[in-house]
Amino acid sequence: MTPAAGDLPSAARRLSRLDAFIRRVAAQRACLDHAARLIGDRPGLVLELGLGNGRTYDHLRERFPGRDIYVFDREIAAHPACIPDAAHVRLGDFADTLPAFAREGRRKAILVHADIGSPDRARDARLAAWLGPALAPVLASGAIVATDRALTTVDWPALALPEGVAPGDYFMYRAP
Amino acid sequence: MTPAAGDLPSAARRLSRLDAFIRRVAAQRACLDHAARLIGDRPGLVLELGLGNGRTYDHLRERFPGRDIYVFDREIAAHPACIPDAAHVRLGDFADTLPAFAREGRRKAILVHADIGSPDRARDARLAAWLGPALAPVLASGAIVATDRALTTVDWPALALPEGVAPGDYFMYRAP
Repeated sequence: MTPAAGDLPSAARRLSRLDAFIRRVAAQRACLDHAARLIGDRPGLVLELGLGNGRTYDHLRERFPGRDIYVFDREIAAHPACIPDAAHVRLGDFADTLPAFAREGRRKAILVHADIGSPDRARDARLAAWLGPALAPVLASGAIVATDRALTTVDWPALALPEGVAPGDYFMYRAP
Repeated sequence: MTPAAGDLPSAARRLSRLDAFIRRVAAQRACLDHAARLIGDRPGLVLELGLGNGRTYDHLRERFPGRDIYVFDREIAAHPACIPDAAHVRLGDFADTLPAFAREGRRKAILVHADIGSPDRARDARLAAWLGPALAPVLASGAIVATDRALTTVDWPALALPEGVAPGDYFMYRAP
């Protein structure tokens, strides 16, 4: 399968929304797979910010078998087969649930996946600016944060993206 | 970008819903692109059954510039930038709108894309069984039908799928 634009008659065509979407989900998967390879058997939780329809949660539990995966979202709208048990769900605004999770005093996270993008870029920028510092208390040393929006208020080094993922398609950081 | 499962430690893992989804949308795009190459400049309309969020409509108008593209759906829930003008929208149940479209006596379609799959496989099978004969009156000779569900009640020859698309991932037929 070739998700690149292909050898169609006119190579100069704009990216369709289908093209952009395939590129985004393929980048997302490539980054999660890359994170799984980088993390290996280092201990820690996995946090999924934005359960959505549960596709990436399903991928995470496949790539991180046996690990505690906690999901955060405003509401559960996922495929029934892709909903964690209640003990691993934190419902509500991230601004409430993430600090509350930190106060629970659980083990730290070795991976956070934050799929927070929306059509509202201004809203996304505010959320991404808030997110980095808010994550710091729940991250293990050297934890990876993979996200579809750049974290603008932390100076964590950006990780090299996996093959085929262009800068800006997705973002990966290594927390201190 | 490599949408294949990749060289992860355990190659025997099940396909996650994210994997399956990427495979499905990549197959969809590959089939639409393949149809565009096969059709070339042969005249005819393009029909999109199931507008959804408008991603494939956006792809179709990119691949078939200047062609009349008619979309059929129960309701419009697409991205505002991916909604055709009202003259090219047929709202309602396919069982009503498709026969009504045939009665309008417009030019015939050279391509129909039917993205009709749902989690309800029994409903899909009923719809796919109905669809083939219902399409026949609107198809130009040699028209292509690309769909995510097998058409079970017509004997149109299946077209070879484009590279990377496995049998059953998507379906392409050539009408007589």
